[in-house]
Amino acid sequence: MKATLMHGRHDVRVESVPDATLKEPTDALVRVTRACICGSDLWPYNGGPNYAGQRMGHEAIGMVEAVGSEVRTLKKGDLVIMPFASSDGTCPFCREALPTACVSVHFMGNDEGYDGAQAEALRVPQADGTLYPIPVGEDDALMPSLLTLSDVMATGHHAAVVARVAPGRTAAVVGDGAVGLCGVIAARRLGAERIILLGRHADRIALAREFGATDVVSDRGEEAVARVMELTRGEGAHSVLECVGTGAATDTAIAIARPGGAVGRVGVPHYDAIPLAQPSFFKNVVVGGGPAPARAYIADLLPDMLEGRIQPGRVFDRTVGLDGVPDGYRAMNERESIKVMVKP
Amino acid sequence: MKATLMHGRHDVRVESVPDATLKEPTDALVRVTRACICGSDLWPYNGGPNYAGQRMGHEAIGMVEAVGSEVRTLKKGDLVIMPFASSDGTCPFCREALPTACVSVHFMGNDEGYDGAQAEALRVPQADGTLYPIPVGEDDALMPSLLTLSDVMATGHHAAVVARVAPGRTAAVVGDGAVGLCGVIAARRLGAERIILLGRHADRIALAREFGATDVVSDRGEEAVARVMELTRGEGAHSVLECVGTGAATDTAIAIARPGGAVGRVGVPHYDAIPLAQPSFFKNVVVGGGPAPARAYIADLLPDMLEGRIQPGRVFDRTVGLDGVPDGYRAMNERESIKVMVKP
Repeated sequence: MKATLMHGRHDVRVESVPDATLKEPTDALVRVTRACICGSDLWPYNGGPNYAGQRMGHEAIGMVEAVGSEVRTLKKGDLVIMPFASSDGTCPFCREALPTACVSVHFMGNDEGYDGAQAEALRVPQADGTLYPIPVGEDDALMPSLLTLSDVMATGHHAAVVARVAPGRTAAVVGDGAVGLCGVIAARRLGAERIILLGRHADRIALAREFGATDVVSDRGEEAVARVMELTRGEGAHSVLECVGTGAATDTAIAIARPGGAVGRVGVPHYDAIPLAQPSFFKNVVVGGGPAPARAYIADLLPDMLEGRIQPGRVFDRTVGLDGVPDGYRAMNERESIKVMVKP
Repeated sequence: MKATLMHGRHDVRVESVPDATLKEPTDALVRVTRACICGSDLWPYNGGPNYAGQRMGHEAIGMVEAVGSEVRTLKKGDLVIMPFASSDGTCPFCREALPTACVSVHFMGNDEGYDGAQAEALRVPQADGTLYPIPVGEDDALMPSLLTLSDVMATGHHAAVVARVAPGRTAAVVGDGAVGLCGVIAARRLGAERIILLGRHADRIALAREFGATDVVSDRGEEAVARVMELTRGEGAHSVLECVGTGAATDTAIAIARPGGAVGRVGVPHYDAIPLAQPSFFKNVVVGGGPAPARAYIADLLPDMLEGRIQPGRVFDRTVGLDGVPDGYRAMNERESIKVMVKP
């Protein structure tokens, strides 16, 4: 079968690999019907840490082709959402709705020995706890939005939850990538009265406004902070969604947080320490976040999607086949595309 | 009158200064009946930032001697708790129970031009919003505990609140100073099932056990982390109260937090960035905290104190007159005393 492998900086290839197979009795074999490229895939693409021949892709919808002998809730022919992390569904963390801390978690396409989703098929461990069956056909028009439940919409939602977005509050979203755009959707869904997007790309800003952004700040650094303060009577935003993952973005996020407010970090942190330890302290700002417990959020978000109230699938502005994956990486990396869907 | 002034490293003096007087119509003039020395006073005592002749002391109970023309809720003869920060009681932050972010906040004994509480008397700004009248006599036996509402018990409580202590959870308290000990009281009061104290001083540990600590870890650094992990089935503590304020203590606090848990920082941070940005992210640990909104907590905590359910006043193991204040600093600095009460 074909799968996507990372070989080094700007060197991602679609290659023939041995067919995915069941290995454990709790596995499912899933034929990928939709996958996508994640902003976090661009870190190894740009030379960040990766292992030789890393299988890429951790977001998918697919058809169950076979299940191991211990799989109880799934069967061949089920269409399922595959969140980016596997989880057994039974450990204390899974029961507390934090499946990314599952005692047997694996990050698909990131953990060595696990398949990636930018492929024709993949082996999914802990299938009962990981996969979420959906009641639609494999070419349903909602497919792009449903696909975002595997990561990007769940991640935007997580940022908003951790940042404590609530009715009447002001939210600020740092970053206009696909996660930031989903953060705008999530902030609006949770009732934010005002949503300030910090971003610089015209196409993304336009989409953010359609999703509910009320204000846009395209400055950077201190100018961006000053502008958000102007917009918020000098107070800052109650809820800040950090959707980039750099130290500079985190610095901005903390600087624009209102006293008593919260920052939800969902950009994979490419910094060792959280800046502004003293300002965040004196403002009593909470900084939280991490990998979104996507599996646990699906049940919350799915109805709004099925009923058309949110359309995060609009972040996909390009669809490629497997052969188009390398060019999809290039396009996202050059900000030519917001997010690329893969239809193997 | 006599007041305490910081002149430099290990040079704190009680001197004659002009009598405190009303300056603004919203001021009260308070005769100090009890004050104390704070762990945070030891930072300037050990050479940390201070301004020449800084007035010291920010925790007090006292008698109102006079009020400005705009003071509405207080009168001469009222016995009041003075939280460490002044607040107007009417701004958006005060209304949201975050008086330390009040638009007209002043930190008593820290802000230049404001009196300190280790003195015979002091001017208190924004008296209506700041001072909390208490229904007891000035020599009531509960006075030590009531005095802790001005800062140290409120601070331990804040750490517990931010760290989301709740019934059945495991709390860990980093630091066995007076704040840490109050953190133990607060964690127990909020229902923690297990309370692990990280501390090394026999007298403080003994008191912590009386306050409700169920386990004590006296190792440091990686050994302390390993020991807490052993005690918590490898998971860590749901709630970590960081009651020291150093980077090393914060590092430990984050390292021992359970996935999905929370760290409440109340030690004034003597570090520029919060360590372990990646581990805290991948664990989805929230890091919050700051100056305790003491004024807003008094109504919650006072009944438990008046009815004897909590006795944070036991952290005071020495009482001095004003002349004894410099030796009180020395005793606290040398860990000869946990916390020193001042009876002018």
